[in-house]
Amino acid sequence: MSDVAKKKQVDRNRTIDPAASEVLARKLPVDTAYDRYLAQQPQCKFGDTGICCRICIQGPCRITPKAPKGICGATAYTIVARNLVRSVLGGTAAHSDHAKHILLTLKALLEGNAPDYTIKSTEKLHAVAERFDIPVAGRTDLEILADLVELGMEDFMRMDGKKSQWIEKTITPGRLEKFNECGIMPTSIFEVIAGATAQTHMGMDADPVNLIFKALQAALADYAGEHIGTDMSDVIFGIPEPVYTEANMGVIDPQKVNIAVHGHNPLLSEMVVVAARELEEEARAAGAEGIQLMGVCCTGNEVLMRQGVPLVTNFISQELPIMTGAIDAMVVDLQCIMPGIQTVAECYHTRIVTTSESVKIPGAYHVDFSEEKALEHAKEVIRIGIEGFKERAGAECEIPEIKNKVVAGFSLETLYDLFSSINADAPIKVLTDALKSGQLRGVALLAGCNNLKVKHDDNHLTIAKELAKNDVLLVATGCAAGAFAKMGLLSPEAVEEYAGDGLKSFIHSLNEANADKLKGNLPLVFHMGSCVDNSRAMNLATAIANDLGVDTPKIPYVVSAPEAMSEKAIAIGCWNVAMGLPVHVGVVPPVTGSELVNGIATQIAHDVYGGYFIWETDPQQAAQKLLEALDYRSWKLKVHDETAEKYGAKASAAW
Amino acid sequence: MSDVAKKKQVDRNRTIDPAASEVLARKLPVDTAYDRYLAQQPQCKFGDTGICCRICIQGPCRITPKAPKGICGATAYTIVARNLVRSVLGGTAAHSDHAKHILLTLKALLEGNAPDYTIKSTEKLHAVAERFDIPVAGRTDLEILADLVELGMEDFMRMDGKKSQWIEKTITPGRLEKFNECGIMPTSIFEVIAGATAQTHMGMDADPVNLIFKALQAALADYAGEHIGTDMSDVIFGIPEPVYTEANMGVIDPQKVNIAVHGHNPLLSEMVVVAARELEEEARAAGAEGIQLMGVCCTGNEVLMRQGVPLVTNFISQELPIMTGAIDAMVVDLQCIMPGIQTVAECYHTRIVTTSESVKIPGAYHVDFSEEKALEHAKEVIRIGIEGFKERAGAECEIPEIKNKVVAGFSLETLYDLFSSINADAPIKVLTDALKSGQLRGVALLAGCNNLKVKHDDNHLTIAKELAKNDVLLVATGCAAGAFAKMGLLSPEAVEEYAGDGLKSFIHSLNEANADKLKGNLPLVFHMGSCVDNSRAMNLATAIANDLGVDTPKIPYVVSAPEAMSEKAIAIGCWNVAMGLPVHVGVVPPVTGSELVNGIATQIAHDVYGGYFIWETDPQQAAQKLLEALDYRSWKLKVHDETAEKYGAKASAAW
Repeated sequence: MSDVAKKKQVDRNRTIDPAASEVLARKLPVDTAYDRYLAQQPQCKFGDTGICCRICIQGPCRITPKAPKGICGATAYTIVARNLVRSVLGGTAAHSDHAKHILLTLKALLEGNAPDYTIKSTEKLHAVAERFDIPVAGRTDLEILADLVELGMEDFMRMDGKKSQWIEKTITPGRLEKFNECGIMPTSIFEVIAGATAQTHMGMDADPVNLIFKALQAALADYAGEHIGTDMSDVIFGIPEPVYTEANMGVIDPQKVNIAVHGHNPLLSEMVVVAARELEEEARAAGAEGIQLMGVCCTGNEVLMRQGVPLVTNFISQELPIMTGAIDAMVVDLQCIMPGIQTVAECYHTRIVTTSESVKIPGAYHVDFSEEKALEHAKEVIRIGIEGFKERAGAECEIPEIKNKVVAGFSLETLYDLFSSINADAPIKVLTDALKSGQLRGVALLAGCNNLKVKHDDNHLTIAKELAKNDVLLVATGCAAGAFAKMGLLSPEAVEEYAGDGLKSFIHSLNEANADKLKGNLPLVFHMGSCVDNSRAMNLATAIANDLGVDTPKIPYVVSAPEAMSEKAIAIGCWNVAMGLPVHVGVVPPVTGSELVNGIATQIAHDVYGGYFIWETDPQQAAQKLLEALDYRSWKLKVHDETAEKYGAKASAAW
Repeated sequence: MSDVAKKKQVDRNRTIDPAASEVLARKLPVDTAYDRYLAQQPQCKFGDTGICCRICIQGPCRITPKAPKGICGATAYTIVARNLVRSVLGGTAAHSDHAKHILLTLKALLEGNAPDYTIKSTEKLHAVAERFDIPVAGRTDLEILADLVELGMEDFMRMDGKKSQWIEKTITPGRLEKFNECGIMPTSIFEVIAGATAQTHMGMDADPVNLIFKALQAALADYAGEHIGTDMSDVIFGIPEPVYTEANMGVIDPQKVNIAVHGHNPLLSEMVVVAARELEEEARAAGAEGIQLMGVCCTGNEVLMRQGVPLVTNFISQELPIMTGAIDAMVVDLQCIMPGIQTVAECYHTRIVTTSESVKIPGAYHVDFSEEKALEHAKEVIRIGIEGFKERAGAECEIPEIKNKVVAGFSLETLYDLFSSINADAPIKVLTDALKSGQLRGVALLAGCNNLKVKHDDNHLTIAKELAKNDVLLVATGCAAGAFAKMGLLSPEAVEEYAGDGLKSFIHSLNEANADKLKGNLPLVFHMGSCVDNSRAMNLATAIANDLGVDTPKIPYVVSAPEAMSEKAIAIGCWNVAMGLPVHVGVVPPVTGSELVNGIATQIAHDVYGGYFIWETDPQQAAQKLLEALDYRSWKLKVHDETAEKYGAKASAAW
């Protein structure tokens, strides 16, 4: 362990979020994740490096100098690779479960069984349909949607050998060739999940390369799931457009019924937004000045992106808003919901309300949410919040007076719309021209979670500021975007404070060209959405590559998950590598127990797919490595084209 | 740890199989699983009791007095239950992957793309079709098969909410009601695997009861997968009928080309049997006296059951036949293939040949087996064996001269056929009458693997002998059946040696009634097949229940996995509990870290489903507990019916 890491491990102040710091400093008599993280130290080094195998119950087996193989004979590389596949699978299953719910809600809508939902974006419906050659002209939205839902379901369940349409039709020709050549093109999401689970059963695959290829296939199935989730969410809830709102715990209003929506799936939270408007009077009747909705985690991102609902906090600090004493209900749907919130809530009046049959917490309220009675169930949830408010009446609240301005809503469509004010014929050229001219040094996606192995939000903020200073255009998703929202990086002011000259002038020119379209100036970081919306960020990379006439491994585009935590993050990281992108991860994932697997992830992957992983826990170092990766790609592209020009060959890239 | 367990842990003689003992006693300079087991001691108690969580990469988190919760707040019960779900999933995925291959081969057969396969059993095809109301009369086999394959594929992939047909149509009405009432009826295998994986992602379900219900649903999906596997295998390879052969390492013939088939899936091994016959002359040309095929593990059971191929050994001793120096090739398909075989093989001339794209071992030969060129690939495999024989030429072999007679092939159809010689109208009554009269004290399925946490085969043999002595009719599958085969319990002689008077007379009466049908007398234990064939054993339990007019929780039928090892065993155990049966497991699975989950498994499950788990590592104690479970059920049924008769009520059971 490095000295820095050692120091961090004993540092009890584990956040740079001032609001979170303020709540934690109160030393309230209830444990939070920050306390439990310390209590868990030291963590098992076998699990931490991936060389603990629990796949059969002869185990656990652990790789040591004395015991270099498991009982079955599996070596470190088999064990590490098998564990990696299973982690990816967890992520793929989670994202696709989310997407499946949305898809099946659209199916219910078609069948008349989801009366509270409608098609919000005909534009998106048509765009997605046309991508798959589904006829649009002269047909009703419902007819088009029926075909699209059927295709989506096929991409989930087919077992006839045909490949995933959502992947085939959204990637570069080069990636498609590569995935087919390497045998990692997924058939369907379900088949890949089941097959990869089987492949990692005891006494199945022992070959680390074969296993890692399977992990990449499973990760691509994750990409498919995410993409279906984003597309279908846009159809049913609308394409995000610029919204102006606020973030961090200062958004809690003690005079109002404070309801936090938390999780990932917008099916419920979108209805909660509607229900909150309709029940405003009930809240007033209970003595409140209204209903204050706020988001946590990616459900927070979903309603922030489409409804401008303020974000109260991100993943690891999800317990802290409750500790202000002012949250009347926290409504959760699925994923990244720490069971710890219930214990904290029991110290206050706060109601935790679970709403999914696959997410229950002992002691919590449960509303069995269904799309058939969506609005009714959303109202039930709001009323639980109003009851909470009544119980709180009179009690003192301690709310950190910290919040920041947020401009969000940057779907790819919104970005294109902004670009089109400069170049209406080829909007993407606004970006690629800036990359070619050197105005921008590259594009970086900052994605993912929080992980207390690093100080909360520190990696996110440090890397973003360093990249911005160096003229890298930043897009963000998930709890990275949440960190930026809370700490003011999604504000126009941050452009002036942190952007290098090139980035500043790029954003300024967008501001000027869009002065009539926008209610205010653009932010430093462009919030693209929740974690399923990493598909939007990939679409951006694909568009850049297609415009430059090269494949994705050649474009100056990097990905960073500065505080990766969940299996979803592992899946996202893996498909970004397969897509040909350098992927920084700010915590070291459990693969270092095998030099071979670690070497494949960080080096050999580059030879095969063009993408590779960078493990770097120090955020300054990480930013430098990301910049180097961008510069290397830009240099290679330029040299290539200069050479091509010199010798009269056809330029492969459009520099 | 008990004194017995401690003693076992340091006991270096870890097998009761005399052939395995002989090989191990030679102290050859190569590690086997027996050595690696000792090297792995002591094993991690967190993993061993289920309270290590590696589901997100903030972990690993371990439950200790100092840290009673994970970083997210998950308590021991959440962590244990989540790990349990994921174990079951591994099993479900493995079994269903196996079944899917067979189903897709039948689909290929229909499409003309599997020219070496045919429908071997029209009888089974019709029987299965009729179960699902697929019309049979006036249709060709291929027409019927097309409908059946389509239904099978639906049971794999549907996502429209309809329930698994393979489950609905093969269980008692009582079970169907129970599963629907508890919300655990699976839709499709794929959907359940993906959904349960998602449900155990970080921040999803924290409720141990909800999680355990999900584990049971996943386990029922395993039952569906197994049943599809068995049914389809019977269609394509024929229903097993009595075969007379041998088992244990003495079947290796140094003068012949010795080829061991190992794994689970008969698609390849059935073709290897055909190819071996066709290439007998090539072997002779190479100087061999012929080709000696032999089986290991469940592929061994498959070709034993249908082709009478001798079994050389079972799971944990799979490396030892290679150490005789006489195995020319070991051909593996999938599951339970220890990577250790390759290291051992490298000390000899033995070729390890992998044949599945999801099972590769670095350094092994690989034949990319496909159903399209099945026989050609099987011949390639045999020829690799012949090359091995040539390399061996002259080298000394040390083969333990130990083998035992085996009578196997007891599909349910075969058992019915034997019973029908006594009662042609209602064959099952031969068994239920014996249970009612007390001639038999009950029926026990002995299933599953080897696990070096107990001495190899010791639990299998001790429990079987004790139950036989107490007049329990024994059926067996998997490596339990393999243990019995090797040690002579599948021979007629064992009836005389070990059966109590009741069991002896029951088997004798079957021998007498079937004297003209059988080539020899019946064995002590009835070998029903490989691990997917646990579905056959469940069909037997269902038939008993239906004949007695009660549900499965009331019948004197128990299940034991004396040396459970794999995730498949966990899945099988769980669905047997859901089916209402007492299930003994001879090693303690990783659930004891949560008193709640352990209590649900061993006690509360009984209240809800009628089945429950018994953890007991001591085989004598285990046998006593199984006998008590049988006696309790018999007593309850009798009391119930006596009372009913006394008060003139309608008897619920047909005693």
